[in-house]
Amino acid sequence: MTQSQTKKILLAHGGGGRLTAALIENSILPKFGNETLNQLTDSAHLELGSGSICFTTDSFVVKPLFFSGGDIGKLAICGTVNDLAVAGAKPAALSLSLIIEEGMDFEIFEQILQSAAVTAKAAGVPIVTGDTKVVETGAADGIFINTAGIGTKIDNIDLSMNRIVPGDKILINGNIGDHGMTIMSQREGMKFESPLKSDCACLNDIISKVLETGADVKFMRDPTRGGVAATTNELAASSLHSIELIETALPTDLTVRAAADMLGFDLLNIANEGKFIMVTSADTADKALNAMRAHPLGTKAAIIGEVTQKEEMPIVELITTIGGRRIVQMPYGRELPRIC
Amino acid sequence: MTQSQTKKILLAHGGGGRLTAALIENSILPKFGNETLNQLTDSAHLELGSGSICFTTDSFVVKPLFFSGGDIGKLAICGTVNDLAVAGAKPAALSLSLIIEEGMDFEIFEQILQSAAVTAKAAGVPIVTGDTKVVETGAADGIFINTAGIGTKIDNIDLSMNRIVPGDKILINGNIGDHGMTIMSQREGMKFESPLKSDCACLNDIISKVLETGADVKFMRDPTRGGVAATTNELAASSLHSIELIETALPTDLTVRAAADMLGFDLLNIANEGKFIMVTSADTADKALNAMRAHPLGTKAAIIGEVTQKEEMPIVELITTIGGRRIVQMPYGRELPRIC
Repeated sequence: MTQSQTKKILLAHGGGGRLTAALIENSILPKFGNETLNQLTDSAHLELGSGSICFTTDSFVVKPLFFSGGDIGKLAICGTVNDLAVAGAKPAALSLSLIIEEGMDFEIFEQILQSAAVTAKAAGVPIVTGDTKVVETGAADGIFINTAGIGTKIDNIDLSMNRIVPGDKILINGNIGDHGMTIMSQREGMKFESPLKSDCACLNDIISKVLETGADVKFMRDPTRGGVAATTNELAASSLHSIELIETALPTDLTVRAAADMLGFDLLNIANEGKFIMVTSADTADKALNAMRAHPLGTKAAIIGEVTQKEEMPIVELITTIGGRRIVQMPYGRELPRIC
Repeated sequence: MTQSQTKKILLAHGGGGRLTAALIENSILPKFGNETLNQLTDSAHLELGSGSICFTTDSFVVKPLFFSGGDIGKLAICGTVNDLAVAGAKPAALSLSLIIEEGMDFEIFEQILQSAAVTAKAAGVPIVTGDTKVVETGAADGIFINTAGIGTKIDNIDLSMNRIVPGDKILINGNIGDHGMTIMSQREGMKFESPLKSDCACLNDIISKVLETGADVKFMRDPTRGGVAATTNELAASSLHSIELIETALPTDLTVRAAADMLGFDLLNIANEGKFIMVTSADTADKALNAMRAHPLGTKAAIIGEVTQKEEMPIVELITTIGGRRIVQMPYGRELPRIC
């Protein structure tokens, strides 16, 4: 192969033979290697200390693969780490499974893997098992990544819909809509004076800092697809309590808001990838808020609303800037395909 | 929608909003529902009894989606159950993550899910968490499925390359190459008098029956992509022991062999989806063999070779039907794309 030829992903890289072995040895292990992964057995063997675990999975199909603030590799790690963290678990191990389109530039592939590796390392979570498949050109779009994750349940936390009562506070750790609007603007080719940037981040550290305060945390979820609107509607439906959100309290970036206005989106429906919604008792909300604000991923944290009354058909209402009320509905779901 | 219109998968089915919720409620929960999954939290919470676990993942991109003996749904369950079982673990829970191409017939989608549900139920392993993404027409090929799995380590088994010594026996639970040749023949439009059928099956039950005999099992692996050639080469390389396979001992179906000959394939390189290679001590091989043969998935089980000497550059050799010797190499990997 001459210097000028770009190395490409071939079907044989996913064939389970010599080229797959070479890919694992040259591209996977140098980036992700650890004692468990290096054994390359059919299953990773883990000693977790406790059999009380959380288990989650997500596939990532984001387009474009690289965006301001992240890429599909970083996103695939953060997404699964966050699903564990909001479930009240300490992430212990991840799997990484790749479906690659034949002909993908090897350099781009390596860049994505490197980003996933750096993100996982920073979050303190090892990749312990994985899989690689290659499909022919046109049968996939660049690369799709699935991660699954295992975490051990944290002892001193009791997340339960049954514990939610009127007066409980609803918190978020910062600006809403950054991820979704970054992806959309990039797809639409829109440029702004202060560029948009995805909030894509691993939340396990900030969440553990909040839990350490002893705040009475009753619910956590990361408002990804469907945004704050979907998460609060799910909370209302599951807890059978209505919810009031205060528009003026919602942290937003001015440019993100401008982009949403231009494209006709409601920021409440827009995906976030570095945010979590938390419900705490009224008397411990400030404790949680202060811990969030003390963390780099929570400087813009805010109390954005509260739980109101219990009812059979609960609703989410937004108290608007001018003092009106509007119902926040569960989004339909077609707003932003391939956002994560 | 009129009766004559076929219902299709829409982008909004993967958008995280109302249509995703409807898909989960109407298509996922009725088939897979269990106490853990029904909670629809970000992560499933499991009480495993022990923190000594195995964790594995695989993505499935098989083409065609339906084949004689199975489909992508069944395959996705069996593949991950088998990776746990050959690691000496009792499968405890699976995740199921779908990447669907917009426009897929809803009926086909439902059929695949149903097949996965029936297979998981028969294997006794619940699906506890999942994810659904939809990508636009042309960005994927029908459906890709990822499963990850957790199992609890079985106590009385010590799988370890260090325990392998010359004289150990190599066993397989039946005919080789059935899965790969079924897929290939179907793609090539070949027809045979006795039709080919994939061996796709969950192996956790037969493996536990063999382990119950107390046979001294030192190694297990399912020869999927890359076939028996890849698995035995991996065994040789990791254990630093050469291996001899006996061609006349390899169980094969006559039609599968004919198909391989016609298409120019070596059955040793062909994927299996319901087979496992096992290494036992010489004196307990018959015990293991008898247990295999007593099980419906092992009626054609055989001792197919043995471990020979320890060496730095170990090889796998085939003693051919006419008494010759040929080296069995690690396959290159381009033989059979999208076989699983």
